[in-house]
Amino acid sequence: MDLVSLPGFRDFFPEEAARRAYIFSKWRDAAERYGFVLYDGPPLETTELYRRKSGDELIGQLYCFEDKGGREVTLRPEMTPSLARMVASRGTSLPKPIKWFSIPQLFRYERQQRGRLREHFQFNCDILGEAGPAADAELVALLVDCLCSFGLTEKDIWVRVSDRPLLAALLEALGIKADGQKAVFQAVDKLTREPTEKIHANMVAGGLTAEQATKVLSLFDGRKLMDIASEFDGSKTVCDRILVLQQFFGILDAMGLASYVEFDLGIVRGLAYYTGIVFEVFDRKGEFRAISGGGRYDNLLKTIGGFDLPALGFGMGDVVLGELLTERKLWPAKLMKGLDAYLVLVDEKLRLPMLALAHQLRSTGFSVDYGLSETNVGKQFKAASQKESRFAVVLGPDEWKRGMVKLKNLMTRDEIEVGVEGIVKRLQESRLSHSTMPEPISQHRD
Amino acid sequence: MDLVSLPGFRDFFPEEAARRAYIFSKWRDAAERYGFVLYDGPPLETTELYRRKSGDELIGQLYCFEDKGGREVTLRPEMTPSLARMVASRGTSLPKPIKWFSIPQLFRYERQQRGRLREHFQFNCDILGEAGPAADAELVALLVDCLCSFGLTEKDIWVRVSDRPLLAALLEALGIKADGQKAVFQAVDKLTREPTEKIHANMVAGGLTAEQATKVLSLFDGRKLMDIASEFDGSKTVCDRILVLQQFFGILDAMGLASYVEFDLGIVRGLAYYTGIVFEVFDRKGEFRAISGGGRYDNLLKTIGGFDLPALGFGMGDVVLGELLTERKLWPAKLMKGLDAYLVLVDEKLRLPMLALAHQLRSTGFSVDYGLSETNVGKQFKAASQKESRFAVVLGPDEWKRGMVKLKNLMTRDEIEVGVEGIVKRLQESRLSHSTMPEPISQHRD
Repeated sequence: MDLVSLPGFRDFFPEEAARRAYIFSKWRDAAERYGFVLYDGPPLETTELYRRKSGDELIGQLYCFEDKGGREVTLRPEMTPSLARMVASRGTSLPKPIKWFSIPQLFRYERQQRGRLREHFQFNCDILGEAGPAADAELVALLVDCLCSFGLTEKDIWVRVSDRPLLAALLEALGIKADGQKAVFQAVDKLTREPTEKIHANMVAGGLTAEQATKVLSLFDGRKLMDIASEFDGSKTVCDRILVLQQFFGILDAMGLASYVEFDLGIVRGLAYYTGIVFEVFDRKGEFRAISGGGRYDNLLKTIGGFDLPALGFGMGDVVLGELLTERKLWPAKLMKGLDAYLVLVDEKLRLPMLALAHQLRSTGFSVDYGLSETNVGKQFKAASQKESRFAVVLGPDEWKRGMVKLKNLMTRDEIEVGVEGIVKRLQESRLSHSTMPEPISQHRD
Repeated sequence: MDLVSLPGFRDFFPEEAARRAYIFSKWRDAAERYGFVLYDGPPLETTELYRRKSGDELIGQLYCFEDKGGREVTLRPEMTPSLARMVASRGTSLPKPIKWFSIPQLFRYERQQRGRLREHFQFNCDILGEAGPAADAELVALLVDCLCSFGLTEKDIWVRVSDRPLLAALLEALGIKADGQKAVFQAVDKLTREPTEKIHANMVAGGLTAEQATKVLSLFDGRKLMDIASEFDGSKTVCDRILVLQQFFGILDAMGLASYVEFDLGIVRGLAYYTGIVFEVFDRKGEFRAISGGGRYDNLLKTIGGFDLPALGFGMGDVVLGELLTERKLWPAKLMKGLDAYLVLVDEKLRLPMLALAHQLRSTGFSVDYGLSETNVGKQFKAASQKESRFAVVLGPDEWKRGMVKLKNLMTRDEIEVGVEGIVKRLQESRLSHSTMPEPISQHRD
């Protein structure tokens, strides 16, 4: 019998589920520290919704089918179209700016490759209703802080930031019109993957002169914002966009995050729908695919929902992030929550009082387990340690006659005799000492 | 433009997402108090997996389609087949008993009706590898405690418990063989929906004599376990099953949950795959559909995965539960988490220091927000209260010169002047006073 999941789909056994829960909780915490609130949309939408955004181009890679009512439907490949639909449907009634996050599972029918999945979970954060660069900076700050909360530092990751309208203005200043610009965008997207000569040739094939193509290529030689500013000081559009970018970087600087972000004109992002600042996060060593990416998409709500609202967002998947945490050994030592107490039954005759005790402790809020059928004490202790219990409560007939039990701390191996109230007190103390008061999060502040 | 979701699918705007998160957290907490650990499977499986369990009967109600690789696939309509597949795939390597929980989203293409959705989230708890009634009782105890953690009491809900093999043994004792038993099961499933005469007629049509049918109907007149025991004391199979049920009820009694559970032979559950104790939870007033249901399905792992392992479980959906919480007014007053602090900018010149402060507080673990663009102080306070912030931190030029800010408690309206360390201290105190140490959970203990 076939016992595996579909190719590209994951089973989450408890260990993997605990890792996923860890990632989700860090994502959620970061979003909430930044004042984002949770939303979600349906995992199945009309195919039309995705067509509105991307045309028919992407449909070939989607899980789309006809439902039993004859509707063209698609398993969501991304969250933004649902977000745009939802926000547009409430229109003006939502207070602005909207700061929302979600952790949807997304689906793509990609060609099967090693490590290429057909589903993943993606942290989505979006700001809607704010046109200025303060929103872009806020989003990137959240992105950086979120990654830092996993133990990653400026030595591990960096955010490469570019700007669509600036690149367009630069090309304009070089005399390259709309059609040529499109060729440039497509060519630049392959900057790191193809030799310079080929990109040059592609741009010339796209209608640029050889001289224009050479000049375009020189834009991507890693030059600083200030160099561009002085070279193109004749173009007002260029200067305006540089001012916006300077504000953006100034905010991140004020937040102490300057060392994470770098201007890099070569980041254009594949998707045509971006309209402003765009960014991608990579590991510094360049060993992994992009960890996250996003940018401003001011026209999407109008395209999808007929509602004009500036918007920007990013997505971060669980797969690349998980690989990075594994490679950097950043998973916490203890991922499973474990139990507060495991009840050990020395004499089967005490089963009913043990059940009463189990229920009492559980009703007090503690996680408690015990053996469902009769087994020897050794096996019960083994089960306690398998389930990562902090305490064992041993019900022996002699102690029980005196209304007492043995409480054994399974970390320290200390053992004391206590009454039921004593158990509650000790378990509570142990909880308090592991309590989760706000703690410094970012690594870059030590 | 069409801005609604597909029929039967829900959008979760922040308010609904907060309700959903509340339900999920209560589910998760209850499962963890009982020593269950999280797992998950893929939302898309081969159609074959569901066919193995239910034959072709259910396929008409499923979201099944052919994927781009020509595979017959289905959006999961229930979790148990994935669970059975996963556990069977690891076979003997998992320590027993397995106590796992999950909160999958499930899909069914049901006929569109008011309040009938095509997706819902379902809390699934299962125990595998334990044949005795201690496991059944443990599961029902979790189910009851979980519902109590929402504020429901024995006045609101009850668990109706039956036993498949007991009913079969009773029918056997009445001289009804396999075919006739099947007719009885089908008829009994409609006990509350159809008149007695019609059920009687259906059983006779199914091969029973009129006398047998009358005797069968009398089994469902609400009689107690003890009445059945004395009436059928000649049947060893009946007596054996009654012993098992007595153990089951004895455990729940020891746990203090007797008032929640009742023996009710009329609960047979629609699904044929149950092999032992079965149960359903209803509201006492009978206003809602079943809140939860489950039972023992000892043969399923063999059917689906070729691996012989006793198993039992229950499912609880978010829709009926949500309706019940609404009707009983049991949603907490404060569902959104709100912010620790909202930073109010009196003078735009202080924006950069405010950004630094925002980042410092966020890095300390607090949730903080501020206005992304320049607005007047009144609107900033309005935003603070919209976002349910506990404090406002007011940055005024005079105080700032002295290294101070105004810290306003938005609940009490108290206002003090503090330095940055003072903010951290006050926010921490406020967090502590709202801290979440274990608290008594069950309502039935007051």
